[in-house]
Amino acid sequence: MNLTTPGPVVGIVGGGQLGRMLGEAAGPLGIELVVSDPTPDPPAAPVVRDTVHGDFDDPETIDELAAQADVLTYEIELADPDVLERVSEEYDTPVHPAPDTLRTIQDKLVQKRRLEDAGIPVPEFRAVDSPGELRDALSDLGYPGMLKAREGGYDGRGNLPVESPDDVEAAFAAIDGPAMVEEFVPFDRELSVIGVRGADENRTFAPGENIHEEEILRETVVPARVSDAVHERAKAVARDVLELMDGRGVFGIELFEESGEISVNEIAPRPHNSGHWTIESAQTSQFEQHLRAVLGWPLGSTDRRGNTVTKNFLGDVDEPTPAALSGVENVLAESRANLHWYGKREARPLRKLGHVTLTDDADLTDDLLVRARDLVDSTTFR
Amino acid sequence: MNLTTPGPVVGIVGGGQLGRMLGEAAGPLGIELVVSDPTPDPPAAPVVRDTVHGDFDDPETIDELAAQADVLTYEIELADPDVLERVSEEYDTPVHPAPDTLRTIQDKLVQKRRLEDAGIPVPEFRAVDSPGELRDALSDLGYPGMLKAREGGYDGRGNLPVESPDDVEAAFAAIDGPAMVEEFVPFDRELSVIGVRGADENRTFAPGENIHEEEILRETVVPARVSDAVHERAKAVARDVLELMDGRGVFGIELFEESGEISVNEIAPRPHNSGHWTIESAQTSQFEQHLRAVLGWPLGSTDRRGNTVTKNFLGDVDEPTPAALSGVENVLAESRANLHWYGKREARPLRKLGHVTLTDDADLTDDLLVRARDLVDSTTFR
Repeated sequence: MNLTTPGPVVGIVGGGQLGRMLGEAAGPLGIELVVSDPTPDPPAAPVVRDTVHGDFDDPETIDELAAQADVLTYEIELADPDVLERVSEEYDTPVHPAPDTLRTIQDKLVQKRRLEDAGIPVPEFRAVDSPGELRDALSDLGYPGMLKAREGGYDGRGNLPVESPDDVEAAFAAIDGPAMVEEFVPFDRELSVIGVRGADENRTFAPGENIHEEEILRETVVPARVSDAVHERAKAVARDVLELMDGRGVFGIELFEESGEISVNEIAPRPHNSGHWTIESAQTSQFEQHLRAVLGWPLGSTDRRGNTVTKNFLGDVDEPTPAALSGVENVLAESRANLHWYGKREARPLRKLGHVTLTDDADLTDDLLVRARDLVDSTTFR
Repeated sequence: MNLTTPGPVVGIVGGGQLGRMLGEAAGPLGIELVVSDPTPDPPAAPVVRDTVHGDFDDPETIDELAAQADVLTYEIELADPDVLERVSEEYDTPVHPAPDTLRTIQDKLVQKRRLEDAGIPVPEFRAVDSPGELRDALSDLGYPGMLKAREGGYDGRGNLPVESPDDVEAAFAAIDGPAMVEEFVPFDRELSVIGVRGADENRTFAPGENIHEEEILRETVVPARVSDAVHERAKAVARDVLELMDGRGVFGIELFEESGEISVNEIAPRPHNSGHWTIESAQTSQFEQHLRAVLGWPLGSTDRRGNTVTKNFLGDVDEPTPAALSGVENVLAESRANLHWYGKREARPLRKLGHVTLTDDADLTDDLLVRARDLVDSTTFR
């Protein structure tokens, strides 16, 4: 295999923070990136070769991206698998992960059926296309249940708990479209495993423990504070999930852990917020792995370098406001912290604007979590 | 202190591999870079916001850079301190490190005098402006001596050993300009310390041990394989050097070690090839430190994460040829290796085209060096 200059060009649908961190990982490998994004100056723009302006599913935009790229990928599920498939054939440009895998994952019902059919543990679920079907399903699964829009949801949007029969009508009306309902899993912990499908092998990183509030990821603790047996079980389930996917690339696999049992919550066909710790604390980051994978290069080591906690900077604002974080000197001065600021122009309520990673060799994940919270609390959005 | 979007813009004279690695470090911090370079598509171009095309010392180019930047710096000594000083005043844009420090360092004789005057150990030296003066100096210092052009040398260019009185005429003619001569130091090892001058403190990284061949840096081993006392002595000398400089930023301080004694060989007012190990193996890289420093931000921790060896990929070609490295799969598949490819279009004899870093927690620097050599030997320029 040869490295040349200019190096291979990877075209990415989406130029948000994941595109930006892919750009940061591409430089050392001599890989060049082109991204497409509906925002004129998206987070990835300052660190990539070129930015194509247009919607994630706009055929002309994706044409323009494909014309410049040796391989196409996406950092957001709003990419259109039909457009990607057509463009891939027309330009003879491979797309990874496979458009069909994106299609499967975009529909949460199809995703869950696929997992269930393969014998992968998932919460019980039913398709529901009317309030009556939702009522029937929950009289079977029991209340509370989790109603989910089949398409378009992320960061908890499109998910609604249904506490009792009285909530059924309003919940179904709020979702407003094809839906599914799942039994509520009284999980002890939410875990995730970042996995990568390469050309001839798959690899997984250490399981992380994810702390959500208001359905938004706040913190990830690695390694997850669970037994070795649960670690192994989580990785085994993640490996089974990877086997089901088509094409190459990184997948974020969200799991529930309940009394040591693992079930799959959701899959993201891209680098994942809960894998940002890999930038500083793994031998190869999830972003570098994704680029290696989509190009068909050998995968890197997933070894950990220490214990680590990441915590997101979320827009704690009431309405959109120019993004400005004060108190940053506290984060910069903390000797175990690495700062990541995504370059988004606007802070919006609960929008992810950056994150901080704390790493330590000692076995101190609880302490690291306290330090991460103190650090982020010492900053404010003006 | 506030982080905003867009973040601060750092203008850099030079867009080579150091500019590229500064770009890779800027993204996570929300810092944007603009570089100037005489090459139309220099290594930094794909990872920075903008590239200004023009010579390092061209006033109009530097004007254009200053107009876009909140602070100016340089990644090559060929920047012009007079131009930088004038532009700094005209645009009210700070320049770091101070142009006067660049001026001092550019003239090896002035640099050495400055160090000697401050009581910092340096090899004995004399200014020599004619073959007669060179002969007189060496009859005093003894043969062999090292004749150096006062200005413009790098990677050993402009340095000539003078073995005997018979060599004097030819050596002086080859240097062709103002020169100095130094006693030859029969060093046991060449060391270097990467130091950083911040707004209100200076910091140093662990001393590295540099292995040169044909005056080109081949490998850096960190920590240097010397006693703790020599480590401390090297850091103390580096701290004294930092105190002498003006302005903020990273300095590469090259040292000789002879029987445990340290003397200063040369200073670079910028990130240094021997500090590339800090990208993966220090809490904060030299590139992030440089950006923090020039912006007046708090410095990061210089703690090491493991033992490490870096080895350069040098153009082992007889004449300029398109840059293509084969056998890269061996480097990518090595679990402890991180690859850096600079994106230079052309391989030239002994040109630095990339490097590889191997890191391990165990105390295995000798082994790491063997592995790094094997890896680089397994690749070839076609």
